[in-house]
Amino acid sequence: MNRHEIFNNIISKKSFLCIGLDTDINKIPKHLLSYEDPVFEFNKEIIDSTIDLTVAYKVNTGFYESRGIKGWISLEKTFKYLNKFKNQIFTIADAKRGDIGNTSEQYAKAFFDFNFSGFDFDAVTVVPYMGKDSVKPFLSFKDKWVILLALTSNKGSDDFQNLELKDKKKLFEIVISKSSKWGNEDNMMFVVGATKTEEFRKIRNIIPNHFLLVPGVGTQKGNLYEVAKYGMNKQCGLLINASRSIIYASNNIDFAEKSRKQALKIQQEMKEILKNL
Amino acid sequence: MNRHEIFNNIISKKSFLCIGLDTDINKIPKHLLSYEDPVFEFNKEIIDSTIDLTVAYKVNTGFYESRGIKGWISLEKTFKYLNKFKNQIFTIADAKRGDIGNTSEQYAKAFFDFNFSGFDFDAVTVVPYMGKDSVKPFLSFKDKWVILLALTSNKGSDDFQNLELKDKKKLFEIVISKSSKWGNEDNMMFVVGATKTEEFRKIRNIIPNHFLLVPGVGTQKGNLYEVAKYGMNKQCGLLINASRSIIYASNNIDFAEKSRKQALKIQQEMKEILKNL
Repeated sequence: MNRHEIFNNIISKKSFLCIGLDTDINKIPKHLLSYEDPVFEFNKEIIDSTIDLTVAYKVNTGFYESRGIKGWISLEKTFKYLNKFKNQIFTIADAKRGDIGNTSEQYAKAFFDFNFSGFDFDAVTVVPYMGKDSVKPFLSFKDKWVILLALTSNKGSDDFQNLELKDKKKLFEIVISKSSKWGNEDNMMFVVGATKTEEFRKIRNIIPNHFLLVPGVGTQKGNLYEVAKYGMNKQCGLLINASRSIIYASNNIDFAEKSRKQALKIQQEMKEILKNL
Repeated sequence: MNRHEIFNNIISKKSFLCIGLDTDINKIPKHLLSYEDPVFEFNKEIIDSTIDLTVAYKVNTGFYESRGIKGWISLEKTFKYLNKFKNQIFTIADAKRGDIGNTSEQYAKAFFDFNFSGFDFDAVTVVPYMGKDSVKPFLSFKDKWVILLALTSNKGSDDFQNLELKDKKKLFEIVISKSSKWGNEDNMMFVVGATKTEEFRKIRNIIPNHFLLVPGVGTQKGNLYEVAKYGMNKQCGLLINASRSIIYASNNIDFAEKSRKQALKIQQEMKEILKNL
């Protein structure tokens, strides 16, 4: 999916929401456990109940890998189901991969080359620590995206990402300014944690036009407007992710309905915000 | 496998070699393609021909994931086969994972919790970029190891790992000094690229006792002695990885025999080096 198509979906759905399918088999409603593949069944119901409200789904591969081969089968089923709505939604493998060049080539095939792996997500999250040659292999697929970790929303982001370099710039700023030259606005996005609203201005100075994937808004209410104020650009430029707050809105038989209610609440706020575009 | 057992294997095998099973289905001998699972068959023959010469095997998950579910089945078969030699070898999942705490917990289950995922490797490689809470979940498994990326052997290591911070220290030095306090010598090792021999002294000043996993020696001949000179400690403290130079030593029916010959050459050099312990 290209930049133009993403923007068109944002406009037509009046939403820049991304729903994270961090599906933990120990947290889904108990009645689903009688299905052959409870995780897929859960995902399918969540997708069906929210697809008109969201422009993207993000599968967090850790939650699938933790169940070994069974988990990868659930992931494949989920991917195939999402693929039925190919033009309506942007699909992200939140895998946080990255390795030396010849291995990153393999990871790129894993998430982008359907004939090889059975998957061709629109985007994959990549870690910058190993530098340019670890990121480049992901950038050679047409209309596919690298979403590079820049500033994450967890406490540990202070350990290294916020370290000050000798020119007073912080590591995450160098990561963004250097890596944004490896690709362009049409094949790179950046993960920027929403808990650091004051940083958005700095980041938008470096990359005014790139899309940012922003996690952490769902569970920390109220800062959606602030994120939009400093992070939004003329083509929206934001995908705001919410995972647990939406998918685990209820633990009962009505879980999909309650998830929709949560997603709708966020989408309604986004609709208001998008009027300013 | 604990530190004591690793050291005992080094002494009894007179080797600190780790063989990387970066098995690419497009690079293995053609006669194997008639097997039901050519990748597993290749790995099995390599393992059988080298197990007395090596103290560790490292599976590079990228090469398995790239083939989707089929690849994970090859990985599981390889893991089960390795597990037959549980006391003789240290098993590493070179997965370069790391995410916010609740996701890292999932990745830890994926590689360490047999009942959940079907895998319980001795160690997993982890990326430090997201900080302490992304690494901690891997450290709560008894006799399991985090092998944290510090300084990698690829060109891209200059992009960020070698950046100088305001106190003149380089990022990888801060990564090592900070993260080594999150665990200890019995549950953490570090990846240190062998192309930077001059850095070993610095690193050994910070972590004199930790094991280091050193890639890049196989294809860049001649520096094994230098790495040993600056990197070795009283309990050896080194695992030297070679992947392609061993497993792709021949592309013919004699591939396993030729791999053994390559591994033997390195092991013989290690035997000499270990006399200085």
